[in-house]
Amino acid sequence: MTTWVHVPQNSDFTIYNLPFGIFSADGKNPRAGMAIGEQIVDLSVLAKANLLAVEPRYFLQSTLNDFIALGKPITNKVRLEVQKLLMEEDSPLKSRPDAFMPQEKATMHLPVQIGDYTDFYSSLEHATNVGKMFRDPENALLPNWKHLPVGYHGRASSIVVSGTDIYRPKGQVLPKGAEVPVFKPSGRLDFELEMAFIVGKETQLGESIPVDKASNYIFGMVLFNDWSARDIQKWEYVPLGPFLGKSFASSISPWIVTLEALEPFKVSGPEQDPEVLPYLKIEGAHNYDIDLEVTLAPEQSDPQTICRSNFKYMYWNMAQQLAHHTINGCNVKVGDMMASGTISGKDNTAYGSLLELSWGGTKTIQLTNGQTRTFLEDNDTITLRGVAERDFIKVGFGEVSGKILPAKN
Amino acid sequence: MTTWVHVPQNSDFTIYNLPFGIFSADGKNPRAGMAIGEQIVDLSVLAKANLLAVEPRYFLQSTLNDFIALGKPITNKVRLEVQKLLMEEDSPLKSRPDAFMPQEKATMHLPVQIGDYTDFYSSLEHATNVGKMFRDPENALLPNWKHLPVGYHGRASSIVVSGTDIYRPKGQVLPKGAEVPVFKPSGRLDFELEMAFIVGKETQLGESIPVDKASNYIFGMVLFNDWSARDIQKWEYVPLGPFLGKSFASSISPWIVTLEALEPFKVSGPEQDPEVLPYLKIEGAHNYDIDLEVTLAPEQSDPQTICRSNFKYMYWNMAQQLAHHTINGCNVKVGDMMASGTISGKDNTAYGSLLELSWGGTKTIQLTNGQTRTFLEDNDTITLRGVAERDFIKVGFGEVSGKILPAKN
Repeated sequence: MTTWVHVPQNSDFTIYNLPFGIFSADGKNPRAGMAIGEQIVDLSVLAKANLLAVEPRYFLQSTLNDFIALGKPITNKVRLEVQKLLMEEDSPLKSRPDAFMPQEKATMHLPVQIGDYTDFYSSLEHATNVGKMFRDPENALLPNWKHLPVGYHGRASSIVVSGTDIYRPKGQVLPKGAEVPVFKPSGRLDFELEMAFIVGKETQLGESIPVDKASNYIFGMVLFNDWSARDIQKWEYVPLGPFLGKSFASSISPWIVTLEALEPFKVSGPEQDPEVLPYLKIEGAHNYDIDLEVTLAPEQSDPQTICRSNFKYMYWNMAQQLAHHTINGCNVKVGDMMASGTISGKDNTAYGSLLELSWGGTKTIQLTNGQTRTFLEDNDTITLRGVAERDFIKVGFGEVSGKILPAKN
Repeated sequence: MTTWVHVPQNSDFTIYNLPFGIFSADGKNPRAGMAIGEQIVDLSVLAKANLLAVEPRYFLQSTLNDFIALGKPITNKVRLEVQKLLMEEDSPLKSRPDAFMPQEKATMHLPVQIGDYTDFYSSLEHATNVGKMFRDPENALLPNWKHLPVGYHGRASSIVVSGTDIYRPKGQVLPKGAEVPVFKPSGRLDFELEMAFIVGKETQLGESIPVDKASNYIFGMVLFNDWSARDIQKWEYVPLGPFLGKSFASSISPWIVTLEALEPFKVSGPEQDPEVLPYLKIEGAHNYDIDLEVTLAPEQSDPQTICRSNFKYMYWNMAQQLAHHTINGCNVKVGDMMASGTISGKDNTAYGSLLELSWGGTKTIQLTNGQTRTFLEDNDTITLRGVAERDFIKVGFGEVSGKILPAKN
């Protein structure tokens, strides 16, 4: 497939991709768009010109929730309609410069209003690493881990779009050997390399999503950085789980890549042993081969790759996560976001957090500018990227980037 | 203060109370109202008649969020305007029967769209009881408990209004002595007696609410039943906290009692020792003396009181909860709900859950109909009530009630 729009060789936003997002010029009148090459297709302009199966009002909102709620038969149709318009020689869009805005001139917004946000913990390597460091190296995984996709509810209000600065959080930490906590800015600020999916179809209270129907309920995916303050987390998290160590901010990439665009990149996941309970059992390939990369850029220094991982490593897949989440009758809503948990690989260059890369702060990471890191310093910028490529088909996520500002007084 | 509206002796909804809620006739056109005696004052009718400081559109919505977001100077003014209209002899409402609907004819709805829901764990007696049962009787409280109000993020989508039936959840549980979990309907279904406050004023990411300003950010309170499946919870909750054991449903009372109506019932809380960090330190009386009661009604049997407790027992108060929640810069939004955690007293008749009342299922609770309980049976109805009374001033919460239906197939 080829488009008449210029798509640079290295672009994530090919004619195979066509992700949805919310954009504006200068923050005014946010509306729905689709990324192609270095451009944004303004879907409201296309709808007003009667080129799409959907009324303009669905694209003239500051979130995609109402559009997504129309359901996959409609949203997929719109994506294919735009694809056709971007491919055909006699496309009416060729004479409509008002239907395009260069990405470099646009402000990107959170693409959805997030109702509830759930964070899973589905990488075997990450859970094992954390268990070794925080608990018992001989019994790193807790007994439930291989029987269910462990997860917890996170804070939705503090999820922000790529480019938003992050203040270093303050909180209670327990100094080594002390019995009484002190109050201070976090000294062990970290990123977590994750991906998240966005729920596209609601369920009613009491209803469960069968594991083999789960993909019908997933609209698409984004990159997700689950910023974490390890010292705050360590002191607060027993017995009810992470709270302020995570809730100060999470960052997502602005473009939602549809599950349909990711279809060519399906692969089998790791073997699950012991066998899972029937409600979690699913045949076929349900992981996705998406190359992931994290760069760290100190102030006025070049970004440097500190991790290369892949979404295919996940032990629990998204279908299992969603089936598990709803097996108790918990309802889901359009716009709910469910993150994977840190995506670590086997190799120590594939660890998706500084906690693992610095092994709990015991190893320093050498940077090319001569500095070292164990955890994040003020003014460091972390950027996550994700790209799937196969047989000349390329579908990328763009990036999610965030800079650490000093703690507020 | 007296009103010309008939208020029965036992009514929670006196002229001192005037809580806000969302009601409808037959579920159609939900709108904002205020409870007085056995009536609902239709605030949209009053606004249309130019009797209130606010435009009708704020009362013609299915949630109170936009109204609450107007801020306390406005919302308090509206409450006092209605109070005056319900007291004065020559009130224009006396000739407006269309401004009233009997509560028995109304359907009550969720009063707010809940953005994020947080559940604290702020009763010393409850945390101690659970610690004794689940962990170590000699070290029941974990080291952080007296230094910070422990809390976790809960599921907002499954919060329902009083009267909604609750399906018994299914999930993974680990049979005693087994190493592998089984999938079944929960056998240890429980209620939790809690109260919750609703955030009335938003903050920005990076901002913290000072403990002595916290009451400006609290619009009002409701009764909260945090239904819990103890067997699911026990197997899943390490290391990231409660998830499916709680997320199948929580129930709230429909009327939001304002913090201003609760002002006469402020009392000092328990002494906090060790001393708390400065950001949690607050002088004066910040607990509330609210009598709480739980009844259990088996199918076709009378309700029976199984617990009497009081909100004043809380170790951590709401101002401290909100200050702690935001100390890391986590932003809050109008409509966020923050629950207290189970409110247990010292005496074993004041335990706010069946887990504690049956001491982990080891003691049976005798019912007057000859039956016994350790945990909830299908078709049991649990009702929580809360009333504050002092010097002839009475402010009640009404009730939150829910019936357990058998697990869905």
